[in-house]
Amino acid sequence: MSRLCIHSVTTKPWSTEDCIVKYAKAGVGGLTLWRYNLEGRDPAKVGNQAREAGLDIVSLCRGGFFPGATAVERQKAIDDNRLCIEQAHALGAPLIVLVCGAVPGQSLVESRKQITEGIAAVLPDAEAAGVKLGIEPLHPMYADDRSAVNTMCQANEICDALHSPTQLGIAADVYHIWWDPHLRREIDIAAIKRRLFAFHICDWKTPTTDLLNDRGLMGEGCINIREISDWVDSAGFTGHREVEIFSHRYWAMDQDEYLARIVAAYRQTYV
Amino acid sequence: MSRLCIHSVTTKPWSTEDCIVKYAKAGVGGLTLWRYNLEGRDPAKVGNQAREAGLDIVSLCRGGFFPGATAVERQKAIDDNRLCIEQAHALGAPLIVLVCGAVPGQSLVESRKQITEGIAAVLPDAEAAGVKLGIEPLHPMYADDRSAVNTMCQANEICDALHSPTQLGIAADVYHIWWDPHLRREIDIAAIKRRLFAFHICDWKTPTTDLLNDRGLMGEGCINIREISDWVDSAGFTGHREVEIFSHRYWAMDQDEYLARIVAAYRQTYV
Repeated sequence: MSRLCIHSVTTKPWSTEDCIVKYAKAGVGGLTLWRYNLEGRDPAKVGNQAREAGLDIVSLCRGGFFPGATAVERQKAIDDNRLCIEQAHALGAPLIVLVCGAVPGQSLVESRKQITEGIAAVLPDAEAAGVKLGIEPLHPMYADDRSAVNTMCQANEICDALHSPTQLGIAADVYHIWWDPHLRREIDIAAIKRRLFAFHICDWKTPTTDLLNDRGLMGEGCINIREISDWVDSAGFTGHREVEIFSHRYWAMDQDEYLARIVAAYRQTYV
Repeated sequence: MSRLCIHSVTTKPWSTEDCIVKYAKAGVGGLTLWRYNLEGRDPAKVGNQAREAGLDIVSLCRGGFFPGATAVERQKAIDDNRLCIEQAHALGAPLIVLVCGAVPGQSLVESRKQITEGIAAVLPDAEAAGVKLGIEPLHPMYADDRSAVNTMCQANEICDALHSPTQLGIAADVYHIWWDPHLRREIDIAAIKRRLFAFHICDWKTPTTDLLNDRGLMGEGCINIREISDWVDSAGFTGHREVEIFSHRYWAMDQDEYLARIVAAYRQTYV
């Protein structure tokens, strides 16, 4: 249970404070906050509340969205990522997850170039703040407008292109990458290069009725979660297993009951 | 217009006979039929009707779905593919498109092994009937239950594993493969190995509201259709450009008006 982390968005109906109290009471080890959790709050205080409750703050979601049709838009994204780095620093979150972005109709090659440039622009800020950046490869079904980085290989390539900065790595989410025939190899490469920063879990339901908000609990779908998790661990990863589930169905149910189900599904996955 | 082919499922509300008459009248060059089009009909007669109307029969959709949890299920799939080959032969369709299949929870590696074995089992029948088989790589969002073949590279690998039989090749659909960073390379390889059998077009809408039935008309989305089409042509492909659109939205509209829009979108793409 010490390695179980939950993303606040998983129980979206709960306030930041609810998440902290409820997760801690359930024996969850870590918490990843989303930026909406900081609205109207002092990030430093939120961080203290979480730590005092016994929760590790694992990461802050999310930075990124670097591509833009104009230089003005791209600069706006860089500014927002600098703000995100400040927030993570104040919160005491060691990592920001990057959903890198894409512009519909702009070539993915150009978008990846802009992503690489955007990351390069904010890396000094991340370094100064002692905050790491984790590129999250997103499923190819999000290549239109959410991310031009769709495989672990592409994330590794961006880290390589920037000469493997200590602050830059990868957040691997089984939902996005389970189908990839080169997954284990790319996990190993990321681990060897000391850039495997985070590991997210949930499941892929059959059928999936919504591209964004119909993720399943571990065990409800077809993803070989435990196998991928074992690959990650055997590559040397010792961090949290972060449950990140977007689901209209689960958001509609009693969140206390849902949290109990999350804990049960986690225990079942890691018996 | 001679290279424009339409999949009957694109105008699903129309009967087989409607499709033949309407497509021909619109000046469309080719027709790909789906197996439901043959229900209660003599495939040979349907083929003659289409040819007499001036349409090339480009392919029959679809065979495949080889993986199964048991040997009995896998044999049933092989039998169905043999039936499909008979139907294509009678129809006079030179090609069957294979949606290769996947079993939720079964490893994709195992499913690809079963796909390779299934194709090997029916290849002699295809050869005897003079019908080709085209593996259609499906988008990774269909890896749970529709296809464990999700990239052109994997399709090329299966052809290689079977020692490049003349009857076996690839049906490339921009909807499934547009995001692939290795797309052009794999198109070139398929063409060099004389296995680029078919080319399907449609567009990826932002947002996409349904995983199956919300495809867009060419020009409505983010896919670089013309660029991919030029790659395919410059690799030596001279076959039809097949419009295959599953869309609740378009199926709900007047199909004559829709056909006019398809023709206009095609002309706009290939000005």
